[in-house]
Amino acid sequence: MADTTESFARLDHERIDRRGYPEAIFCEGKTPEQVGAIAAELREHGRAPALFTRAGPEHARAVLAELPDARHESQARLLVWPPVPPAPEGGLVVVLAAGTSDLPVALEAELTARYLGRRCELAVDVGVAGLHRVIGMLDLLRSARVVVVAAGMDGALPSVVAGLVAAPVVAVPTSVGYGAAFGGLAPLLSMLNACSPGVAVVNIDNGFGAGHLAAQIAAPLTPAAGAAT
Amino acid sequence: MADTTESFARLDHERIDRRGYPEAIFCEGKTPEQVGAIAAELREHGRAPALFTRAGPEHARAVLAELPDARHESQARLLVWPPVPPAPEGGLVVVLAAGTSDLPVALEAELTARYLGRRCELAVDVGVAGLHRVIGMLDLLRSARVVVVAAGMDGALPSVVAGLVAAPVVAVPTSVGYGAAFGGLAPLLSMLNACSPGVAVVNIDNGFGAGHLAAQIAAPLTPAAGAAT
Amino acid sequence: MADTTESFARLDHERIDRRGYPEAIFCEGKTPEQVGAIAAELREHGRAPALFTRAGPEHARAVLAELPDARHESQARLLVWPPVPPAPEGGLVVVLAAGTSDLPVALEAELTARYLGRRCELAVDVGVAGLHRVIGMLDLLRSARVVVVAAGMDGALPSVVAGLVAAPVVAVPTSVGYGAAFGGLAPLLSMLNACSPGVAVVNIDNGFGAGHLAAQIAAPLTPAAGAAT
Amino acid sequence: MADTTESFARLDHERIDRRGYPEAIFCEGKTPEQVGAIAAELREHGRAPALFTRAGPEHARAVLAELPDARHESQARLLVWPPVPPAPEGGLVVVLAAGTSDLPVALEAELTARYLGRRCELAVDVGVAGLHRVIGMLDLLRSARVVVVAAGMDGALPSVVAGLVAAPVVAVPTSVGYGAAFGGLAPLLSMLNACSPGVAVVNIDNGFGAGHLAAQIAAPLTPAAGAAT
Amino acid sequence: MADTTESFARLDHERIDRRGYPEAIFCEGKTPEQVGAIAAELREHGRAPALFTRAGPEHARAVLAELPDARHESQARLLVWPPVPPAPEGGLVVVLAAGTSDLPVALEAELTARYLGRRCELAVDVGVAGLHRVIGMLDLLRSARVVVVAAGMDGALPSVVAGLVAAPVVAVPTSVGYGAAFGGLAPLLSMLNACSPGVAVVNIDNGFGAGHLAAQIAAPLTPAAGAAT
Amino acid sequence: MADTTESFARLDHERIDRRGYPEAIFCEGKTPEQVGAIAAELREHGRAPALFTRAGPEHARAVLAELPDARHESQARLLVWPPVPPAPEGGLVVVLAAGTSDLPVALEAELTARYLGRRCELAVDVGVAGLHRVIGMLDLLRSARVVVVAAGMDGALPSVVAGLVAAPVVAVPTSVGYGAAFGGLAPLLSMLNACSPGVAVVNIDNGFGAGHLAAQIAAPLTPAAGAAT
Amino acid sequence: MADTTESFARLDHERIDRRGYPEAIFCEGKTPEQVGAIAAELREHGRAPALFTRAGPEHARAVLAELPDARHESQARLLVWPPVPPAPEGGLVVVLAAGTSDLPVALEAELTARYLGRRCELAVDVGVAGLHRVIGMLDLLRSARVVVVAAGMDGALPSVVAGLVAAPVVAVPTSVGYGAAFGGLAPLLSMLNACSPGVAVVNIDNGFGAGHLAAQIAAPLTPAAGAAT
Amino acid sequence: MADTTESFARLDHERIDRRGYPEAIFCEGKTPEQVGAIAAELREHGRAPALFTRAGPEHARAVLAELPDARHESQARLLVWPPVPPAPEGGLVVVLAAGTSDLPVALEAELTARYLGRRCELAVDVGVAGLHRVIGMLDLLRSARVVVVAAGMDGALPSVVAGLVAAPVVAVPTSVGYGAAFGGLAPLLSMLNACSPGVAVVNIDNGFGAGHLAAQIAAPLTPAAGAAT
Repeated sequence: MADTTESFARLDHERIDRRGYPEAIFCEGKTPEQVGAIAAELREHGRAPALFTRAGPEHARAVLAELPDARHESQARLLVWPPVPPAPEGGLVVVLAAGTSDLPVALEAELTARYLGRRCELAVDVGVAGLHRVIGMLDLLRSARVVVVAAGMDGALPSVVAGLVAAPVVAVPTSVGYGAAFGGLAPLLSMLNACSPGVAVVNIDNGFGAGHLAAQIAAPLTPAAGAAT
Repeated sequence: MADTTESFARLDHERIDRRGYPEAIFCEGKTPEQVGAIAAELREHGRAPALFTRAGPEHARAVLAELPDARHESQARLLVWPPVPPAPEGGLVVVLAAGTSDLPVALEAELTARYLGRRCELAVDVGVAGLHRVIGMLDLLRSARVVVVAAGMDGALPSVVAGLVAAPVVAVPTSVGYGAAFGGLAPLLSMLNACSPGVAVVNIDNGFGAGHLAAQIAAPLTPAAGAAT
Repeated sequence: MADTTESFARLDHERIDRRGYPEAIFCEGKTPEQVGAIAAELREHGRAPALFTRAGPEHARAVLAELPDARHESQARLLVWPPVPPAPEGGLVVVLAAGTSDLPVALEAELTARYLGRRCELAVDVGVAGLHRVIGMLDLLRSARVVVVAAGMDGALPSVVAGLVAAPVVAVPTSVGYGAAFGGLAPLLSMLNACSPGVAVVNIDNGFGAGHLAAQIAAPLTPAAGAAT
Repeated sequence: MADTTESFARLDHERIDRRGYPEAIFCEGKTPEQVGAIAAELREHGRAPALFTRAGPEHARAVLAELPDARHESQARLLVWPPVPPAPEGGLVVVLAAGTSDLPVALEAELTARYLGRRCELAVDVGVAGLHRVIGMLDLLRSARVVVVAAGMDGALPSVVAGLVAAPVVAVPTSVGYGAAFGGLAPLLSMLNACSPGVAVVNIDNGFGAGHLAAQIAAPLTPAAGAAT
Repeated sequence: MADTTESFARLDHERIDRRGYPEAIFCEGKTPEQVGAIAAELREHGRAPALFTRAGPEHARAVLAELPDARHESQARLLVWPPVPPAPEGGLVVVLAAGTSDLPVALEAELTARYLGRRCELAVDVGVAGLHRVIGMLDLLRSARVVVVAAGMDGALPSVVAGLVAAPVVAVPTSVGYGAAFGGLAPLLSMLNACSPGVAVVNIDNGFGAGHLAAQIAAPLTPAAGAAT
Repeated sequence: MADTTESFARLDHERIDRRGYPEAIFCEGKTPEQVGAIAAELREHGRAPALFTRAGPEHARAVLAELPDARHESQARLLVWPPVPPAPEGGLVVVLAAGTSDLPVALEAELTARYLGRRCELAVDVGVAGLHRVIGMLDLLRSARVVVVAAGMDGALPSVVAGLVAAPVVAVPTSVGYGAAFGGLAPLLSMLNACSPGVAVVNIDNGFGAGHLAAQIAAPLTPAAGAAT
Repeated sequence: MADTTESFARLDHERIDRRGYPEAIFCEGKTPEQVGAIAAELREHGRAPALFTRAGPEHARAVLAELPDARHESQARLLVWPPVPPAPEGGLVVVLAAGTSDLPVALEAELTARYLGRRCELAVDVGVAGLHRVIGMLDLLRSARVVVVAAGMDGALPSVVAGLVAAPVVAVPTSVGYGAAFGGLAPLLSMLNACSPGVAVVNIDNGFGAGHLAAQIAAPLTPAAGAAT
Repeated sequence: MADTTESFARLDHERIDRRGYPEAIFCEGKTPEQVGAIAAELREHGRAPALFTRAGPEHARAVLAELPDARHESQARLLVWPPVPPAPEGGLVVVLAAGTSDLPVALEAELTARYLGRRCELAVDVGVAGLHRVIGMLDLLRSARVVVVAAGMDGALPSVVAGLVAAPVVAVPTSVGYGAAFGGLAPLLSMLNACSPGVAVVNIDNGFGAGHLAAQIAAPLTPAAGAAT
C-alpha cells in the first residue's frame, strides 16, 4: 500500500481545466514509492489521462501495482492510464525518427500526442544521408498539421523537412551520437540555427515535450481547448 | 543601378508555392550592394511579400533605393514590401516582451506574423518580477491561438505563461542582460528546460523565426496552406 | 577502532569561535575510514554540533559506529550530532522545493538551518507551472526573514518569489532535469540572471550551503553571532 | 519633452509596497528617449527613490534633463534621485573591492545599499596576494551585518573573508581580467565553489544586485520591511 | 623600404620542397610593416607562389607596395603573387557556398585551390532550405574529385552532399549566423557529427585551409607531389 | 530467429551504387535484437561488405548469430562481413596511433580503410614527446597517399606530421586523457587549429569515419568510384 | 607470461638520457595485459626508475606480477620500481593538500618528486577557510625551492600561498567538488587567473605532472640534469 | 599633477621584502589618472623596479608624465622604471615565439624576466609546422634553466620542446588564431594536456606571468631570494 503524497508532492489536478491538458508525472528523480503514491492518488482523484514519463523499470512496477491496466511502453519509458487513447480530434501529427537509435524519443512523442487526442503517423530511418528516403514521403509530410522530427548527431533533418512543408516542425534533438555530439548539444544547436524558418525546438531527448507541443499545435479549433480562430 | 544577383545568390521564388510562405532575405553578412540587387530582383520577379531581416542602416538605404515604398521598421531591423500587410486570416497571435529592452525582438516577431497574414496583439513589460502584470492579461493570453514571448535574463516568462494557457508558446530568448546571461544563453537554457510543456524555442534574438513559426501555428486550416484537420 | 586524523585532516575546532558556526565535514571524496576517524575526534574534542554532508551509506555507517546517536537523514545525505537541534533563535527560514525531485536538496537546506539554530518551514511542489501554488502561500513567504528556493530545470521560481517578498531569497539550483539542463547549469544561470533583485545564489545541489547562508541571514542581532545593528 | 512610456514600458510603482524596495531602471538596451520618458514618469508618479543602473553618458543626459538634481555617479554608471540618501537604518554594510579595477562595481553596490537606507563602508585593494591587507581590516569586517566583496580574476577573496566572519558575504564576480577569466566566468565559478559556507553569489558585474541584496540582509527587523524575528 | 624580417620571422622557403606546397603568410596579428617586409623577402627569395591570407586593407597596401602586380581579392581577404595561377593539374575541386554570406570563405577556398594548381568550380546559395538547388547540381558534384562546402548556421549541407557523392567533402563551418550559432560553433559541431561518412572538417572560416586540403586531395598522382598509387 | 527490420530501420542498400561505399551499421543505441535483424537482412539482400561499428559484446553476439563467419575485432568494436577484405586498389593509407591508448581508434580506422579496399600500414606510439619516433618513419609517411593520425591529450601529432608530408592528414581526436582533455575536446580543438594546413578533422573517437575518409581520398581514379581526373 | 610490447607500444628508453627523467607509463586506457608486458620490458631493459601512473587495481596486479617488489601506493594510483627512491638532490619540494579529498593527488605529486630524486614535505588540510592553518606553516613554505598546491572547489589556495613566498608555486586543480566545480574546471580557472604571479598550472588531477615539474624546478644545478646557471 | 592613490589603491610596497619580487601594476581597467597617480607614488616611495603591464597608449602617457625616463615597450604593452635592467643573476631564460603574431606576448615575458634580473634569449617563428627550426636550436634550448614558449592556434610547441630538454617549460597560450581557437582556449587546453611532463601553464596572453614565473624558476640559490638547496 503506497504512501500518501502530501509530504512530497502536490498534484495539479486542475491543470486539465486551466490548460486543457493534464499534468504529467516526471519519474526521474522520484523514488518508486513516491511514484506509486502519486499513481494511487491519480486513480482516486485524477480526472484525465495520466502520463508517467522517463519511468525506469522500478517506477513502472510501482505504477502498475496501483494501476494494473496502465499501458507501459518500455522503449519510450512511458506509462499511460487509462490504456486506451481518447478518440482523436484535430490535425494529423507526423513523427519522424532520423535513425533507429532515435526511435525511443520519437515513440515517446508519438504516444504522448496520441494520448492527448491526436491522430499520429510514425516513420523511421529518414536521415539526410539518404535523401531519397525523405523525398519519398513528401505526401505524408504535406498532409500533416505538424511534423515532429527526432534526430541526433548533426540534427540536419528538421532543416530539410521544414524547407519542404507548410506545417511547423517540432524538432527534438536526441543524445544519440558520441564525442563532439556532446550529449545532444550538436543537434540542439543545429536545430536552433535551422536555415529554414518554422522549426520549434524542445529539450534534448524530450519526446514528451515534443508530443505535447505537437498536440497543442494540431488541436481542433474549439473553445474547450482554449483556441480561437 | 544594382548588380544582378546571379554571381552571389539564387533566390528561391518558388518557396511560396512549396511552403506557403515566401523566402526572407537575411541581410547580415551581405553587402548593401548585394541586398540592393536582391531587392531589384524581387521587384521584378517576386510573387509574394518580401521581408528583409536584420537590416542595418546601409542595407535599408539599398532596399529603399530599389523599393521606395517599402516599410522600414528600424527598431526591428526589418523592411517589408509591399508596405501594407495582407488581410489577416487564421488565429490570433499574442506577442509579449518581458522588458522594454526585449521590445525590438518582440516587434520583429509581431511584424513578421502580421505580414505573413495573421492578426497580432503586442504587450510589453510583462516580466515575472511583477506577476500581477502577467495575471492581469490572462483574458488576452487565453484568446490567442499562439503566444510569442521574448525574454532575456532569466527567461522565466514562457514557463509562467505556458502554465496558464492551452495554446502553444513560442519562446524567443534575447541577448538582453550581461555577465552570466552569456549573450542569451541563460534564457535559452531556461526556455529549453521550461517546467511547463508546450514551449517551442527558437534561436536567440530570432524575432523573425518566432513570428514565422507563430504564423504557421495560427494558420487557417485550408488545403492551400498544406494543413489538414 | 578508527584511525587518528592527523595524517589526512586538521579539524578547525575554533571555527565556532571565529565565525559562530562549526566546521561541517564534507564526506564526498573521503574514505569511510577517514570520516569515521573525524567523527571520533569530534566526539572527543568537538564543542559544537557536528554536520556530515554528502554522506553515502558507507560514510553513514562509519559515523554511526562512532556517534551511535547521531541523526541520519539519508534522503538529504546528512548526519548531525548531537541528534537534537539547538533551541531556535532569530528569524524564520522558509524553504521551498519547486518539485518533488528537488526535495533532497531542500531537506538538506532545511535541516542545516535548523541545526544551526533557526526555525524552519518546508513546502514542496511549488513550481511556476502552477502559479496558484506559489500565490497560495504568500502569507507564509512574507513571514520569513529569508526564503530558500531549491529548483532545477528552468530555475524560474526564485525570480517569481523574489518579486513578491521583502526578504532575501537564497536560490539553490539543482541537477534535476536532463539534456540542456546540463547538470544544473540551466537553473544556475537563470538564478544568476533573476530579473528580480534580492536573489543570492549558491552552488548546484548545495543544500548545505543554502541552509548555512540562510541561518546567517536570519541570525539574531547579538554580539555573540558577530552581527551588529 | 520626453515621450510617454505606455508604448514601451509599464512601471511597477507598487513594488515599494509589495517588496519594501522600489523598482530600479536598467538602462542598457533602452534608448535615451525611453529612459528620459521613464524619468519623467517617475518624477510625476514615483513614490520612492529612483535608481537608474548601467547608464551610459546618453542615458545620463536624458535622466538629468528630466531630473536635474539627480546624483550621477559616472564610475558606477548610476543615477539616483532624489540626490540625498534616506536616513540609514539596520546593520552596517561593508563593501570590499579586491583591486582598483573592481572599484566601479564595488561603488555601484555601495551606493545602491546606501540609497536603499543602509550605513556603508567601502575599502579598496584588499586582494589575497597581500593577505596582510585583509587581516588588517578584521575589526571592520567583524562589525558588519553583511560584507559585499567585488573581485575579478581568481575570485578568491570571498572565500577568505567568509572564513573570518560570522556575517554572510555577498560575492560579486567582476569581468576584470583577461584570457581564461572568460569575462568573469573564472571568479563566478570560484565564488560558487567557495570552500567557506556563507557566500551568496550574484551575477558578474552586478554591483546593483549585490547592494540590493546586502540592503535586504541588513534590513532592520520591522514589519514594514516584511521581516520577522 | 620595408624592414628585414629576421627580428620577427623566419620564412620556411623549403616547405615547397618538403611538402610540395609553399608556406602561406597569415596576416592577422602581424603589423603591416611586418607583412611588407615578408613580401619583400618573398620577392627576393621565394621560389613558389606566395599567398597572403586574412589580409586587411593595411596589409594589402603593404603587400602591393612590394609586389605591385600581386592579385588582391578583397572579399576573400587574400593576395596571391604572381597574379596568374599555375596551369591546373589533378582532379576537379567543386566549391559550394550554402548562402551568400558564406561566399567570402568559399572564395578563399576556391582561390587557394586554384593557386595551388587545381581546376575549380564555384556554386553559390545551395542551402538545404531549398533542396532542389542541391539536387539540381548533382552532375557537377559527381564530376568532382573533392567537394568543398562552406556553410554557417545549421551546417547541414555537407551531410546532405556527402550522402550523394563518392568524393570526400571538405566542410568549412562559417561564422555566419547569430545567437546560438556561437560564432560558428553550431555548424562546426554539425559537421563533426555528419551522419554521412566522408566529411573532413577544418576550422571555422578557414577557407584557406579548406582550399589547401582540397588541393592535396585532388593532387595528381606524381612522385613530385609525394603521393603514391 | 531475428525480427524483420521494417518497424525500426530502412536500410540504404543502394548507397553502394550512389556513393561507391556501403552503408555501415552504427550499433550504439540499437538493441542487440535490432542489430541481429539488420545482419539477417544484409545477409539476404546486401550487395556489399557490411560493417558494424561501435559494437558491444551483445551486439557482436547478435551479429555472429546471423553471420557466423563475420570477422569480429573487439578492440576496435567492429564486425565485418564477409571476413576477407577486397583486393586493395588505390593509394597507401598509413595510420598512426600517438599512444597505446589510442590504438583501438587507430585500429578501427585501419580496418575500415582495408575493408573499403585500400592498402594500409599501422604504426603505434609515435607521440611528439619522443620526436625521433616520428622522424624515424618519414619514409613510410612520405609513401602514403593519406595519413590517418589518432591522438588524444594535446593532439599535437597531426600538426607535426602535416608539416612533413605532401599528403593530406586525417586527424582523429581520441577521448584518451582526463581533466582538461574534456573527453577529447582538447585534441579536437588542437587539430582544428593545426598550424600546418592539410589536416582534415573528424569526430572524437571516430575511427570509422577517419578510415572511410582515408579510403575515399586514396581511391583509384576510376569512374566506378565516382572520381575524375 | 606477458606479451611482448611491440604490437602496441614503443618505449622511450633513451628519454632518461635526453631529458634526465625517465618515461612514465600512463595506465588508464591500457589493458592490464599491455601494462604487464611493459613492466616486463622495463625489468629487462629499463635503465631508470619506472613509474606507473593512474593505475587501477587490475593494472597494479599486472605490474606486481612482473615486478613483485614494486611499491604500490593505491591511494595515489601509483606504482614505482625499484621500491626505494634515489638519494635526494636539489631543493626542497613542499606539497600542500587544501583538503582531505585532495590528498590522493597531493600524494601522487609528492611520491613522483621523491622518486625523481627530491626531498619532499607534505602538509594536509590547509584550506583558505581557516587562514591560520596557512599562516602557521609560513616557515616551512619559505624553506621550499618550489611549493606544490593541490586544491579543488574554489582553487584559492595557490593565490594565497604565492602571495607569501619567493618560490614558484605549482598548482594542481583537483576534481574535488560538485555542481559548478564542473569536474575541476572551477579551480583550474582560478589558478590560471591567480592574482599573485608565480603560479604554474598543470592539468586537473595531474599529481604526476605536478611532481615532475616540481622535481625539475628544484633540480640541482648540474650538467647531468641538463640545467645551467 | 596626479591624484593621490588612497581612494582607489593601496600599493604593496613590502612585496619586494616578502616575495623578493616587486608588485607590478596591471593597467587594464584602471583609468590613466589612476595609473599616473600610482606612478607618482612609486617614484616617491617605491624601492624596487616598477613594471606597468597591459598598458595602452593613454596609460603610457600618464606613466611617462610622472616617470619620464621609464622604458616603454609598446609592442609588449609594458613600461619599466628605472629603464636599465638590474645586473643578471641565476640561470638562463630562453623565450620562444611560435609565430610572428605571438611575438608581443613573448616580448612581454622576456622583458619581465630581464627586469626581474635574469639573462634572456628570445627566438621567433619556431612553429612545429617546420620542425627543423625547433631542432636547429637544440643547443640553445639545452643551455636554458627554463624555457618559455608562447604559442597560439594548436599550442603544440611546448609539448615538442618539453620532450627535448631537462628544464621546465613555461607555456603561455596566446589568443592568436580565430574560429575554434576560441580566444586562446585551444592552445590553453593543448598545453594543459601536454603529453610531455614538465609543462607549466599560465593564463592566455599572460607574458608577464610567464616571465615572472621563469625568473623565479631560474633564480639563484641565495637566501635573499627565499630559495633553499
